[in-house]
Amino acid sequence: MQTPIPFYLDEILENVRYLDGGSVADYIPPLAAANPSYLGAALCTTTGHLYSAGDDSEEFTMQSISKPFVYALALQELGFEEVVAVVGMEPSGEAFNELSLNRDDHRPVNPMINAGAMTVTQLINGVDSGVDERVEHIRQYMSRLAGRDLTIDEETCDSELLFAERNLSLAHMLRNYEIIQDDAHDAVVTYTRQCSIQVNVKDLAVISATLANGGTQPITGEKILDPDVCRLTQAVMSSAGMYDGAGRWMAEVGIPAKSGVSGGLLGTLPGQLGIATFSPRLNSEGNSVRGVEAFKRLSQDMGLHLMSTDQRYGIHPIRDVEIINDAWVVRLQGVMNFSAAESILYRLEDYDITADEVLLDFSQVTTVNRIGRVMLKEGLRRMREAGFKIGVIDPDERIKDRTMRDGTQVVRRDDNEDYMINGEELL
Amino acid sequence: MQTPIPFYLDEILENVRYLDGGSVADYIPPLAAANPSYLGAALCTTTGHLYSAGDDSEEFTMQSISKPFVYALALQELGFEEVVAVVGMEPSGEAFNELSLNRDDHRPVNPMINAGAMTVTQLINGVDSGVDERVEHIRQYMSRLAGRDLTIDEETCDSELLFAERNLSLAHMLRNYEIIQDDAHDAVVTYTRQCSIQVNVKDLAVISATLANGGTQPITGEKILDPDVCRLTQAVMSSAGMYDGAGRWMAEVGIPAKSGVSGGLLGTLPGQLGIATFSPRLNSEGNSVRGVEAFKRLSQDMGLHLMSTDQRYGIHPIRDVEIINDAWVVRLQGVMNFSAAESILYRLEDYDITADEVLLDFSQVTTVNRIGRVMLKEGLRRMREAGFKIGVIDPDERIKDRTMRDGTQVVRRDDNEDYMINGEELL
Amino acid sequence: MQTPIPFYLDEILENVRYLDGGSVADYIPPLAAANPSYLGAALCTTTGHLYSAGDDSEEFTMQSISKPFVYALALQELGFEEVVAVVGMEPSGEAFNELSLNRDDHRPVNPMINAGAMTVTQLINGVDSGVDERVEHIRQYMSRLAGRDLTIDEETCDSELLFAERNLSLAHMLRNYEIIQDDAHDAVVTYTRQCSIQVNVKDLAVISATLANGGTQPITGEKILDPDVCRLTQAVMSSAGMYDGAGRWMAEVGIPAKSGVSGGLLGTLPGQLGIATFSPRLNSEGNSVRGVEAFKRLSQDMGLHLMSTDQRYGIHPIRDVEIINDAWVVRLQGVMNFSAAESILYRLEDYDITADEVLLDFSQVTTVNRIGRVMLKEGLRRMREAGFKIGVIDPDERIKDRTMRDGTQVVRRDDNEDYMINGEELL
Amino acid sequence: MQTPIPFYLDEILENVRYLDGGSVADYIPPLAAANPSYLGAALCTTTGHLYSAGDDSEEFTMQSISKPFVYALALQELGFEEVVAVVGMEPSGEAFNELSLNRDDHRPVNPMINAGAMTVTQLINGVDSGVDERVEHIRQYMSRLAGRDLTIDEETCDSELLFAERNLSLAHMLRNYEIIQDDAHDAVVTYTRQCSIQVNVKDLAVISATLANGGTQPITGEKILDPDVCRLTQAVMSSAGMYDGAGRWMAEVGIPAKSGVSGGLLGTLPGQLGIATFSPRLNSEGNSVRGVEAFKRLSQDMGLHLMSTDQRYGIHPIRDVEIINDAWVVRLQGVMNFSAAESILYRLEDYDITADEVLLDFSQVTTVNRIGRVMLKEGLRRMREAGFKIGVIDPDERIKDRTMRDGTQVVRRDDNEDYMINGEELL
Repeated sequence: MQTPIPFYLDEILENVRYLDGGSVADYIPPLAAANPSYLGAALCTTTGHLYSAGDDSEEFTMQSISKPFVYALALQELGFEEVVAVVGMEPSGEAFNELSLNRDDHRPVNPMINAGAMTVTQLINGVDSGVDERVEHIRQYMSRLAGRDLTIDEETCDSELLFAERNLSLAHMLRNYEIIQDDAHDAVVTYTRQCSIQVNVKDLAVISATLANGGTQPITGEKILDPDVCRLTQAVMSSAGMYDGAGRWMAEVGIPAKSGVSGGLLGTLPGQLGIATFSPRLNSEGNSVRGVEAFKRLSQDMGLHLMSTDQRYGIHPIRDVEIINDAWVVRLQGVMNFSAAESILYRLEDYDITADEVLLDFSQVTTVNRIGRVMLKEGLRRMREAGFKIGVIDPDERIKDRTMRDGTQVVRRDDNEDYMINGEELL
Repeated sequence: MQTPIPFYLDEILENVRYLDGGSVADYIPPLAAANPSYLGAALCTTTGHLYSAGDDSEEFTMQSISKPFVYALALQELGFEEVVAVVGMEPSGEAFNELSLNRDDHRPVNPMINAGAMTVTQLINGVDSGVDERVEHIRQYMSRLAGRDLTIDEETCDSELLFAERNLSLAHMLRNYEIIQDDAHDAVVTYTRQCSIQVNVKDLAVISATLANGGTQPITGEKILDPDVCRLTQAVMSSAGMYDGAGRWMAEVGIPAKSGVSGGLLGTLPGQLGIATFSPRLNSEGNSVRGVEAFKRLSQDMGLHLMSTDQRYGIHPIRDVEIINDAWVVRLQGVMNFSAAESILYRLEDYDITADEVLLDFSQVTTVNRIGRVMLKEGLRRMREAGFKIGVIDPDERIKDRTMRDGTQVVRRDDNEDYMINGEELL
Repeated sequence: MQTPIPFYLDEILENVRYLDGGSVADYIPPLAAANPSYLGAALCTTTGHLYSAGDDSEEFTMQSISKPFVYALALQELGFEEVVAVVGMEPSGEAFNELSLNRDDHRPVNPMINAGAMTVTQLINGVDSGVDERVEHIRQYMSRLAGRDLTIDEETCDSELLFAERNLSLAHMLRNYEIIQDDAHDAVVTYTRQCSIQVNVKDLAVISATLANGGTQPITGEKILDPDVCRLTQAVMSSAGMYDGAGRWMAEVGIPAKSGVSGGLLGTLPGQLGIATFSPRLNSEGNSVRGVEAFKRLSQDMGLHLMSTDQRYGIHPIRDVEIINDAWVVRLQGVMNFSAAESILYRLEDYDITADEVLLDFSQVTTVNRIGRVMLKEGLRRMREAGFKIGVIDPDERIKDRTMRDGTQVVRRDDNEDYMINGEELL
Repeated sequence: MQTPIPFYLDEILENVRYLDGGSVADYIPPLAAANPSYLGAALCTTTGHLYSAGDDSEEFTMQSISKPFVYALALQELGFEEVVAVVGMEPSGEAFNELSLNRDDHRPVNPMINAGAMTVTQLINGVDSGVDERVEHIRQYMSRLAGRDLTIDEETCDSELLFAERNLSLAHMLRNYEIIQDDAHDAVVTYTRQCSIQVNVKDLAVISATLANGGTQPITGEKILDPDVCRLTQAVMSSAGMYDGAGRWMAEVGIPAKSGVSGGLLGTLPGQLGIATFSPRLNSEGNSVRGVEAFKRLSQDMGLHLMSTDQRYGIHPIRDVEIINDAWVVRLQGVMNFSAAESILYRLEDYDITADEVLLDFSQVTTVNRIGRVMLKEGLRRMREAGFKIGVIDPDERIKDRTMRDGTQVVRRDDNEDYMINGEELL
């Protein structure tokens, strides 16, 4: 059997193919030469499943799509404070000035506009980095995100540089305000080369899935970015990624996204997946006509809206409860976070527990975050105060430190094979 | 045993109590008279569990916190198009003008600023509604959201009206541009009375949990708003709710939120919970000093960031697989949405299935959305093409229409008791 | 013989009558009822000669034309510092916000925009003035400027008040920022009544000639405003009077001007004259279509551009030099200001004076300003140092104080009838 | 005797010398090296009299002072329409954006801001001009204005070019919008060299007197610019020359002016004079501290305010009336413009003329403009209709064409020596 997901992607592509409005970017020959009928889509889950449809191997330059990822790299290398010192994180609203610099401190308002993106690029590889070293550093990073060696489209880059008046203007103004330290021309060259990294739509899906996955490339498994960095980057994409009409995009589509002038468009659903489309026909705002429509359908048809109130899998974190040897064994499952811990403790409070001992069984738990750990241990401590014996079955040491609030230890009972789960009944 | 959640809320309150900066709003006597030391917090899950701590019964006026909820009401009553015709949904960026009206069409840029909120209020209860009827309509709606009868603080309202110059200015300008149809003074009175509805911090948590729950009040179970309306409202809260610094708020805290000048602050996590704090000390932006800090800690300590890449419960949607009577019975669990269906189909593709028949068991499934239904049926159809017999066990008719792409029906096998799950082993 | 000036005014009117574009203001019935074909013009010199042509007796409401004159009244009553504390004097440039208030201190940017004009009106007759007293005070002042009793068009005023949403918005915002102290509604009523004072085009010419004449009504001779106040008012008219396109107006027309929505338009040439036109057809900016064109022609055809490098009369300030009884009698004429004094002293330096005594004859001098007086006395003192006897013939005591720099007195010789001019030879 | 004007200039300098606030521009070494105590002033009348005081021979670079003069050159070479097509003429108001480009058409708002000035410079010497040719063309033009060969301070220019980030930013943006056609870097070099032309304070006075004199250099007598060009340039200086606070400058000082960062400040009084000061101490707005104060005093003490209602010389244009051989001979004097003709005709209407013939005597008239000529001939024609014989005495043919409205000719009577004035009695 073959999974029908490519089929669904294909269906979405067919449903937007009729849109023949818009036109390819024509300000430089290499972009003007793009085939307007190209149409591709890809989706990569945080579990590393990659699906694609249409023209999924055609390469194009990243352009503005590179912005959030280089921003993430800067956050990773320098930390939040150093980055926010030179570039803000507010939406630009109605473009209130040509340059979108803050009125007072002249920082670019966010890293998704060109002034902000160039500022961010200049932070990479150390302030003293040469142009070539900085570009190569970025290229290698993007390649790790994509899971394959990406190359730079030198012809497109050279053409861009012939029509870079606006970026040169921005770079000189940033230099004027000492927001960037390098020569303005070098800054534009570096940024333009970054924008000229070539990808296909599958690369974009994988790259965005890495963000959605908290920084671990879902296919190679490489840990590239910290979860904090990914969280922040996606927050900025959500408020400023589709700048003209960011509010309406988040309301209607609800997927943090970024588009590029060569026709690419990518989005992330934190914890779930990365999506991308490729179609070079652009609307007047410079977004892919078919890409925007495809995302609207993906959001509606697939229920992929960030503000969707659907629960993700919706399983109760208590798998079952069994009485074994006069102990209530509460079998937990999945991720133990705040919501899960709340559900478990709420349920425990309700049970009319007839046994002397209560054991929480972590065998089927995948991860436990800090608050989950703290809450479950505190729940056990309170049960002990209520007169029960307590303990855990925790063969993978999910709860790590077994010390409770009052300094006592929670007993681990999985040394007692009486309480061992019979793994056979599970997949 | 008592759940430790109130204890954690309490801990957060104690951790922010040291913040004695800021001061209570003092532009009208009733607000100036607020006790600056009041401090309360509450949390309500979409499953209807309500926790609170501190001064959780003190009443205060909703003020701006009423904005997103009346916006939701307008969307519910009039639909998206009619509402967006008079008020935009873009962040205001650096306040580029005094009134925050769009340059071209003079619509308020979003419903979270006063001009937008007054415009929205004027849509409620029909364009011909009298002031009293409109206010009563809103009061009743807010009461349904809170699950108890809310009252209007007439003294605060009267005081506000004595200092309403700015709102009167906005209302006259909206009237000038025919964005509102009513008399400007009436519009201000209506809006001010709406702002004077009294709540406590538990009400706020419940009200926001209703948004997070897709419009169904999680305690009373009343269906008040559509999921689409809630999605949209939360999207607008995320981009414009904490207007000065909305981008940074979403990056650092990551919880769609709204604050009021009387010291309330509420936030939602779609699908999960509503949270609220109450502390009347305000910073220079008019947000509660302790409330803002409490939300930062809630986000960090409890992992409640919207862009968090933590999976919610993280359970695999396949509970287990059992061979019964030469059939592979694949037991599904939780919500069948796009991500779940993708996981299931991906896994099925991998199995080396040794039986002649494959059955999907929906007994433990809680809900199935459209795309989940479509994908799972298509997966079954493809297995049949691959030579298997196929069927479902679906005692609650989760998949509703059993017709597949090719017009054939998927067979339901739960009439055959051989395949019935033994309910006992589950909670 | 009749002067041909009315004939020229008539000619200009005929030359612009073909312009049948634009339309009368139609936002209130009394303005909408204006006869679009009305066309009149008037010109009043600072010497009090009044000429007019066309529909010169039709009355219409002053509207915005009242702004500069009430501004002048405020300056006269309160002085520069108190006025500038609440309203700026900068051009508004491209209207950068709806209200045209300064970003920082919320003062209206200048008194020619509505917010500024209402602020100014509130200064008149003392901060405690009632509405009726303030309006009556302004009406009487305008009547003195016009030289006849002006009345208020109550019907137009009442209509305006029904459509005053924008002004009410401005007034409430001014009240909000405490720029005005009165009730917003009263402020709008006061301002609207001021705008409803009825004039004809001759009144406008006379009123503006009063400004051009340094505050002395040129026909009645009443001293109403100080020259400083008139200078300042005309400066503000020049930079902000025709707000949309003020720069281009000053470049092309070069006449400080103000227009009103009822079709009036007036301008001043400092020291020379006031001009006015009346034609109710308005262009999209709210200026009289024919009025604007008439002013362009007046400026070009009559050489009335403020930056015109034509000398006004261009007479040399030395009328003649005669030798009487071994004295050089230098007969001066006209106004002795800086330029005149410079010319005289420059010429004296050149003469090969063959007499022992030099007398400056002020008999034909009309006025002497401070710098003129100082320079001429210093010139005489230096001639004395060069060995001449010096003195003045000054029957009208134009130079007032005859003390020179070194404390000595310049001798007055018109007591000596030998030096008396024979009046007969003059007009 | 020596004229006391230098003495007055000196007095003004001494009165502002106490101002030791502000500091020299320090962004480049050559400016930072300026002697902060330098202080000079100069004044040049349109009659070509040049006065100066203080450090009047110290040279400094023109900087922004070059802007209005190159603007005038562009107007002269290309005409109004071509210039206004690329640069506006509106004041910038509160700087509403970093670049001061119009929102819609991206033209710089006026030629006094850097973006506008660079745009104007690029118009000079033809669009195809090389950098060196364009600079040389400007240098030669400035030299003609100054009446001596000016040179470029190459060291300052080179230093400026090292710190030209802001101008480079502007130039690239202008290039981006195709407002300028040249390479951005070349545009900055050209403009910077223009700014580096060296002058002393006397040159500035002479240069501005040329503007005030309608384009004729008052000392060399060379006709360099048209009066229209000068009128327009001074109008733009008046509305945008002292950009921050242009309105207040015109109200308080009332002299169209332009300042430069090297400490120069010049102003014009149309038809009267040019003034300049030099003192390198700058205030926070970049204007010369002492220069600004000196101009305030010049305006107040010398009565040099553009809106001053003082009449310039204030002589009546009728010198006298004499009866010669049964003819009324009306002797005119000075400039025959609109105001003069109005005065004459008004007076004629009043006379009880007892003779049969009326003659206007133009012997003492200096110039007659078009409207003056038209009005006086029409006045004569009407006297003829009233029954008088009419004629002119016009030895210098001031009225040129003697044809009147009805096609008849006005008779010239100066062929008749009876009517000849006896020149002796005049200077």
